[in-house]
Amino acid sequence: MAKKVVTFGEIMLRLATPGYQRIIQATSFDATYAGGEANVAASLANYGIDAYFVTKLPKHEIGQACRAFLRKYGIKTDYILMDGDRLGVYYLETGASQRPSKVIYDRANSAIAKVKPGEFNWEEIFSGADLFHFTGITPAISDSAAKVTLEAVKAAKKAGVIVSCDLNYRKKLWTSEKANKVMSGLMEFVDYVIANEEDAEKVFGIKADNTDVKTGDLDDSGYRQVARELLERFHLKKVAITLRESYSASDNGWSALLYNGMEYYKSKKYNIHIVDRVGGGDSFAGGLIYGLLSGMSDHEALEFAVAASCLKHTIPGDFNMVSIDEVKNLMAGDGSGRVQR
Amino acid sequence: MAKKVVTFGEIMLRLATPGYQRIIQATSFDATYAGGEANVAASLANYGIDAYFVTKLPKHEIGQACRAFLRKYGIKTDYILMDGDRLGVYYLETGASQRPSKVIYDRANSAIAKVKPGEFNWEEIFSGADLFHFTGITPAISDSAAKVTLEAVKAAKKAGVIVSCDLNYRKKLWTSEKANKVMSGLMEFVDYVIANEEDAEKVFGIKADNTDVKTGDLDDSGYRQVARELLERFHLKKVAITLRESYSASDNGWSALLYNGMEYYKSKKYNIHIVDRVGGGDSFAGGLIYGLLSGMSDHEALEFAVAASCLKHTIPGDFNMVSIDEVKNLMAGDGSGRVQR
Amino acid sequence: MAKKVVTFGEIMLRLATPGYQRIIQATSFDATYAGGEANVAASLANYGIDAYFVTKLPKHEIGQACRAFLRKYGIKTDYILMDGDRLGVYYLETGASQRPSKVIYDRANSAIAKVKPGEFNWEEIFSGADLFHFTGITPAISDSAAKVTLEAVKAAKKAGVIVSCDLNYRKKLWTSEKANKVMSGLMEFVDYVIANEEDAEKVFGIKADNTDVKTGDLDDSGYRQVARELLERFHLKKVAITLRESYSASDNGWSALLYNGMEYYKSKKYNIHIVDRVGGGDSFAGGLIYGLLSGMSDHEALEFAVAASCLKHTIPGDFNMVSIDEVKNLMAGDGSGRVQR
Amino acid sequence: MAKKVVTFGEIMLRLATPGYQRIIQATSFDATYAGGEANVAASLANYGIDAYFVTKLPKHEIGQACRAFLRKYGIKTDYILMDGDRLGVYYLETGASQRPSKVIYDRANSAIAKVKPGEFNWEEIFSGADLFHFTGITPAISDSAAKVTLEAVKAAKKAGVIVSCDLNYRKKLWTSEKANKVMSGLMEFVDYVIANEEDAEKVFGIKADNTDVKTGDLDDSGYRQVARELLERFHLKKVAITLRESYSASDNGWSALLYNGMEYYKSKKYNIHIVDRVGGGDSFAGGLIYGLLSGMSDHEALEFAVAASCLKHTIPGDFNMVSIDEVKNLMAGDGSGRVQR
Amino acid sequence: MAKKVVTFGEIMLRLATPGYQRIIQATSFDATYAGGEANVAASLANYGIDAYFVTKLPKHEIGQACRAFLRKYGIKTDYILMDGDRLGVYYLETGASQRPSKVIYDRANSAIAKVKPGEFNWEEIFSGADLFHFTGITPAISDSAAKVTLEAVKAAKKAGVIVSCDLNYRKKLWTSEKANKVMSGLMEFVDYVIANEEDAEKVFGIKADNTDVKTGDLDDSGYRQVARELLERFHLKKVAITLRESYSASDNGWSALLYNGMEYYKSKKYNIHIVDRVGGGDSFAGGLIYGLLSGMSDHEALEFAVAASCLKHTIPGDFNMVSIDEVKNLMAGDGSGRVQR
Amino acid sequence: MAKKVVTFGEIMLRLATPGYQRIIQATSFDATYAGGEANVAASLANYGIDAYFVTKLPKHEIGQACRAFLRKYGIKTDYILMDGDRLGVYYLETGASQRPSKVIYDRANSAIAKVKPGEFNWEEIFSGADLFHFTGITPAISDSAAKVTLEAVKAAKKAGVIVSCDLNYRKKLWTSEKANKVMSGLMEFVDYVIANEEDAEKVFGIKADNTDVKTGDLDDSGYRQVARELLERFHLKKVAITLRESYSASDNGWSALLYNGMEYYKSKKYNIHIVDRVGGGDSFAGGLIYGLLSGMSDHEALEFAVAASCLKHTIPGDFNMVSIDEVKNLMAGDGSGRVQR
Repeated sequence: MAKKVVTFGEIMLRLATPGYQRIIQATSFDATYAGGEANVAASLANYGIDAYFVTKLPKHEIGQACRAFLRKYGIKTDYILMDGDRLGVYYLETGASQRPSKVIYDRANSAIAKVKPGEFNWEEIFSGADLFHFTGITPAISDSAAKVTLEAVKAAKKAGVIVSCDLNYRKKLWTSEKANKVMSGLMEFVDYVIANEEDAEKVFGIKADNTDVKTGDLDDSGYRQVARELLERFHLKKVAITLRESYSASDNGWSALLYNGMEYYKSKKYNIHIVDRVGGGDSFAGGLIYGLLSGMSDHEALEFAVAASCLKHTIPGDFNMVSIDEVKNLMAGDGSGRVQR
Repeated sequence: MAKKVVTFGEIMLRLATPGYQRIIQATSFDATYAGGEANVAASLANYGIDAYFVTKLPKHEIGQACRAFLRKYGIKTDYILMDGDRLGVYYLETGASQRPSKVIYDRANSAIAKVKPGEFNWEEIFSGADLFHFTGITPAISDSAAKVTLEAVKAAKKAGVIVSCDLNYRKKLWTSEKANKVMSGLMEFVDYVIANEEDAEKVFGIKADNTDVKTGDLDDSGYRQVARELLERFHLKKVAITLRESYSASDNGWSALLYNGMEYYKSKKYNIHIVDRVGGGDSFAGGLIYGLLSGMSDHEALEFAVAASCLKHTIPGDFNMVSIDEVKNLMAGDGSGRVQR
Repeated sequence: MAKKVVTFGEIMLRLATPGYQRIIQATSFDATYAGGEANVAASLANYGIDAYFVTKLPKHEIGQACRAFLRKYGIKTDYILMDGDRLGVYYLETGASQRPSKVIYDRANSAIAKVKPGEFNWEEIFSGADLFHFTGITPAISDSAAKVTLEAVKAAKKAGVIVSCDLNYRKKLWTSEKANKVMSGLMEFVDYVIANEEDAEKVFGIKADNTDVKTGDLDDSGYRQVARELLERFHLKKVAITLRESYSASDNGWSALLYNGMEYYKSKKYNIHIVDRVGGGDSFAGGLIYGLLSGMSDHEALEFAVAASCLKHTIPGDFNMVSIDEVKNLMAGDGSGRVQR
Repeated sequence: MAKKVVTFGEIMLRLATPGYQRIIQATSFDATYAGGEANVAASLANYGIDAYFVTKLPKHEIGQACRAFLRKYGIKTDYILMDGDRLGVYYLETGASQRPSKVIYDRANSAIAKVKPGEFNWEEIFSGADLFHFTGITPAISDSAAKVTLEAVKAAKKAGVIVSCDLNYRKKLWTSEKANKVMSGLMEFVDYVIANEEDAEKVFGIKADNTDVKTGDLDDSGYRQVARELLERFHLKKVAITLRESYSASDNGWSALLYNGMEYYKSKKYNIHIVDRVGGGDSFAGGLIYGLLSGMSDHEALEFAVAASCLKHTIPGDFNMVSIDEVKNLMAGDGSGRVQR
Repeated sequence: MAKKVVTFGEIMLRLATPGYQRIIQATSFDATYAGGEANVAASLANYGIDAYFVTKLPKHEIGQACRAFLRKYGIKTDYILMDGDRLGVYYLETGASQRPSKVIYDRANSAIAKVKPGEFNWEEIFSGADLFHFTGITPAISDSAAKVTLEAVKAAKKAGVIVSCDLNYRKKLWTSEKANKVMSGLMEFVDYVIANEEDAEKVFGIKADNTDVKTGDLDDSGYRQVARELLERFHLKKVAITLRESYSASDNGWSALLYNGMEYYKSKKYNIHIVDRVGGGDSFAGGLIYGLLSGMSDHEALEFAVAASCLKHTIPGDFNMVSIDEVKNLMAGDGSGRVQR
Repeated sequence: MAKKVVTFGEIMLRLATPGYQRIIQATSFDATYAGGEANVAASLANYGIDAYFVTKLPKHEIGQACRAFLRKYGIKTDYILMDGDRLGVYYLETGASQRPSKVIYDRANSAIAKVKPGEFNWEEIFSGADLFHFTGITPAISDSAAKVTLEAVKAAKKAGVIVSCDLNYRKKLWTSEKANKVMSGLMEFVDYVIANEEDAEKVFGIKADNTDVKTGDLDDSGYRQVARELLERFHLKKVAITLRESYSASDNGWSALLYNGMEYYKSKKYNIHIVDRVGGGDSFAGGLIYGLLSGMSDHEALEFAVAASCLKHTIPGDFNMVSIDEVKNLMAGDGSGRVQR
């Protein structure tokens, strides 16, 4: 029987300028729907997991279109509440070479930001679930969303569900101080933590020595230490850290490491020519969760996650749309990109 | 020397589905920027008026793109404040035949909605101005916007500037009760009022007898009476009422009447095969203001306004982009649509 | 609890030239997925029915994309078999004025055309179902599809499920002789029949006197007689006939009649300015089924169906995407197409 | 064996704004290639005629793309000279309802405008030809083009080829005085003349009484008289006059009459909902030439021409792309626009 | 006088997702027409060869559009039969970086697959021809197509025409066993063979030692041996092998070698940043045939072919559209990509 | 107060094929407006300079659209003359990898090419101005344009305005001999000269030794000498030379050097993955002028200019649209292209 995974958070209308247009040039926007936890659910749905995304959407046509988008990609929408006034929006300008991609959020006062404790029936939601995933964005969007997140992790724990969290620090949403406080309260219920090369420092002040994110000089040993500190401080089962080496907006190195309290695993590194890098981290989380739930070893799961997210960088939109076979082919070493007929 | 007209209000990002797609089908949105008062300014700029649009836009790229859009169409942006967090959005689904166009607003908490009295230097803004135009939408967007509107009309009056107001009732923004109260307070400073066939009733409870808006049976005599009541109650100089006969979303009859306290003028009626009907009323206001400022007789100005707005219905986007010559050709009877080479 | 309706048939990739391009001009095709029974399911899903579409799709990405498309529009895909080689294709060139729309089918040897009896578990499929709908296209696509259709209607009857059939004669798929033979065998299990102004003649030789389809002169009394003959010959419960008056490819009259063995009901007639007329008949069937299942009177259901399908003509693609409220507004007489804000 | 028809003139890059955009709004232009005589050749190629278009195109990629475009639509390009600097351009803004379509020419100094007598080998070109067609645009583009046109008609006459001319007056290219002088010189070699409701007056001062082109009030008897005067003054074999009733840019009435020195024929009139009306007259010429060359009676040829050009109005671009069967179906009365499956 | 080359095979509608979309994301497909032998003809037409493509296309609009597409690019369509039911389709998803391009064929039962011996008049077709080219795809599409291919090569030989064959093994169409048998029968009539790094092994079991296609480690000496074995086994005049080093879907190395029984030539290697790599091999064949027919030395012809196909990788669609000058510039060492003004 | 800069020259309609299409493939062109001096003005407007572009545009809709485009990007259009017949056009095919971008000019006889001395009121134009910029294209477009350029530089000098000139040699517009003569006459009034690696040689015969532009081997010392010779020969204040290393159409190295008569500065070099390289040199000029006018040191201004133009290569269209902050971030070393949220 398919595993059941629940993810909870905000989904937004993503309005991206076509090609490499700057926003001032755009006379149309490509419209998809995206958000950290929905992105993870999309990955999982592709791998055959019963992936439920929990959120609150306005009843009007934009909310309906968002729900239809989720359904299209196989995400279960049964627990979504249809209420509230607005869906958040994010504008995306895709960068190239030395010009970075730029994201402008217009997400305040969304339906999910105004959610109140007690609105979701977490007991029903976690019934039969294997894993619950959220990111650090969800508690950051509003105080009440933070409360509902706490409600959710407690209910998950009570239901015996594994809890996974991607730290995903967003400086536009809260300060490091507030993030530290809120996230520390949630960590008690968390089993797996995923972070990128900046999150641990920004949220918990745990810094890798000898690294410079901007130049892409990512010192492995520093991040091993970060993983260990995270795991120990919060009594986690596993910590995974993604390592992005940003040579430019067009070309990145991409790898990750995982620490399970006993062993460190370092994945293969992929040099990626980028089509769309937004959602890259979420596709890693989706791959890792699938790997761990489907019985892979920690090392295999890590390699699966990195290969899956490598492929994500070649797909427009936040969602990763790759099959298990495609990921495994890449893990097995076929990165040749030869035409498949 | 060119006349100077100031308009004040909210402008939004207009996200329209391409063709006749419903929102659920859209994978992109056509992006323009629009709002009642900006639309009027666009009309006026086409006619050679120095048309200033006053508003508040966020500093980020979406705000900048909006300002650039205004500049493109010749609107003066000198008095626009660049501050605040968000630009309002409206989603548009263009209807056809029996299916109405649908507008979904996501405009709460926009930069302009959060404007505070004292932020604009009205004295400077109205220096040398000939006319100030606003619509009933501006005071409806927030209490503070209403206060700033009052501030504006008072300053305009003080500066000896003609004040024109399009009632433009929006039921999603306020109730008839509130509209009545706020708008009545503003009317004291208003010279010209423009209304469509519903506004006077919804805002001031002044109803045309024997009419049914939905069937398009627009009884002329009823609306003459509405115009007179409006003019008399608020000591106005002129009242113009647009008369839309909605045969369907694709085909409308379009005409207007004007009362100046002495004479009633009824315009020619145009049967229009519609390309984009949003902004039709604003293009009427723009035409009327131009006509009156440029020395046309009331009747001529009315015919100019109706012909101008007839043409607007054939142009995608809210803005009317027609020249004086094009309007005058239509006024002169050439609605044949013969190719001009 | 939501009603459960099952529809069964072929769905194809619909490749439509953009705008009014002829096929020779096209450098891209707009891609959707469509087919008579899937179209009906789409209508029903919009109205809150649990609408299951049963078919067979190839496993490859085109088959998957088709399934995702169905899911997006709320159609349940649980019973779809993923197997076989190809998805049928239909090319569409949208006509205008005197130039008719043109459909080119490339559907032979599709996965569903090669279905074999015994592949579907009809007992499970019809468990809890309220109605089964198919069209005359399904048995026409291949002999084995005809056998599976017979299997289905028998199972439906056995499960106490109402059976509805849209005759939908397709001359490219079979001859009148063969259609007559096969469809007559299926009619024994059918409760409701839907037909357009040509089907009854082409399939069963039941002809309306005094009518000429091409000129749009649709004689009502002739079609009443057709309905009665159909009902009596096959012991049906209800017969509905859609009446299209083709003034041109751009403008049609659209109405329908229903006979239930006791009363004849004639619907209101809509004059429609057409956006996309393909799928119009299916949206009628969807509306009628919804009306009848949801407890409307026969006359109300007929009006609901005609109003729903009137709206379909304004929406690109085969699927009708309208809400119950939108249909009821039109039934209630608001065809004015006024902007809804 | 297929008939051979030669047409001679200018072809331009046609840059049309998408949808109903005004030029100021356009961020892209739809690109096709078009010109009166090439349009006629395109029609003829569709009907199976060996249609040669003679012109001069620059060697560079734009000239090559133009030649490829001609080839795509079956036009023979064997006699086209590849030389010179530029291809003319015309910008097109498609009108709707009361807003006329607008054409801006940028055609001066094109390769063909600079053609010199002696550059074309007319003897070879007319070898085996049945008919030569040109329009009044060709001699108008430059004095040397006028000389080459004269060269061509003389050579055609010498080769025993029927000569057909569409008057096609263009006020931006020359005055009525000059047109009269040049065209009168060419008429001596012409057998068939085609004109629209304005041409005869503008070129030769032959005016229909009691008509007003702008209001669409086209008096039949007036145009009969024009046809007779034309035929008699220039000793023509046949004169055809197209009659466009411009209700608006979206809807036109369309018919024609033909006079052969003995009988007047008046065609059926079509009321057309317009997609693209540019090239309408050329598609009439193409239809008429085909009809006459293929042995139809004058009346049949006229009806064929009108039906063909009626269909042209529903096709984007200047070229008519309809088959003989499609035209004959419409001639036979099927203007119902019913979907053809 | 221009050389005459005949190519024979299947052409399909190519439906490619725009940008880097996956098929599930696509709401439109870019439509071109493509197939191995048509691609070669397109190359040759660009170089001034009289390039005839022989196939069978359905009479309907899709078949006609395909023929028009061929004509546009200068390919002679005189010998194409217009008959049969369908044109094959292939779906293309363009890959990037580690994600390979994916091709889904839907080509069974196409008009050309159902061709019967005797349908083409090969004697006429080869009259005056200099070279006949086919690929291993043509005999693979059906048994009867294989028979017609044999018919063709025999007729070519009889007419004294050089025969060229690109092995082009397609595992979806036949097994290595069958390919070996059928192709061996055809080889007797072949003069030139072109193969990629896999074909010789898959079709004839002739394997290059010490190479690994997936890693791009292409051992030159291994392929020299393959060329020799091919040449000797089938008494060929020349064998060319293309060598693709797939670093990723975005970047490839590209070179080739040629053996003429006496000398081995190895071309320059190009590192290519890929726009569209489908049709790359065919553009090599087109370049090689042109080079050899136009009197280049074997080495020059090889360099011409590799440079031509290098350029193909930068052009969307299967067809190569480059001039002789462009190829020669690259051969001469200008790969700088500096803007040409 | 903002600095005032005036630029003078030709602006054209830029018609670019979408994606990497060749011109023969294009069915639409992306339309922007571009020209060396307008491009510089666009850069400056982004940096807050009052940037006036002086030219002559036809009054018709294409001229108006061009002016609106300038306004959109913040360029002052007050001094533009609206008169004349045509706007020049340039066609652009964007290259990739070994295939160069190709530009086809159709600019002869444009409104600005026909400008006459005395038409511009230079005294008014230069009133309050800080700098005047033109390129070697302006005097090349026609003899009268050369005269007006001379008129302009003299007036600038008289008004005490700094004069800057980008040599920008265009071999399609004039010969080296003529360029030398005309440009030498203008140099007397010039303070700053900007050139690329070829200009100095082509215009003034000043050649860098030991360099090969095509292979991208740009010898620094050679260009230092070129700069010195230029400065000394024409008594310039500063000479800047951009150094493009064309690895391919997709990847370039980009740097520059500046000589002020005392010191040589060599900028950082950027390796750029190119989106659109046309306008790259102009964005360098814009950056340099801004840097120098805003009080940066020569070295800083050079680095600002190179960083700014590096970013330009990632933006579609000729105009650079980057903020001072974006340029400074890159100057400060952040070329990582990390997403900015």
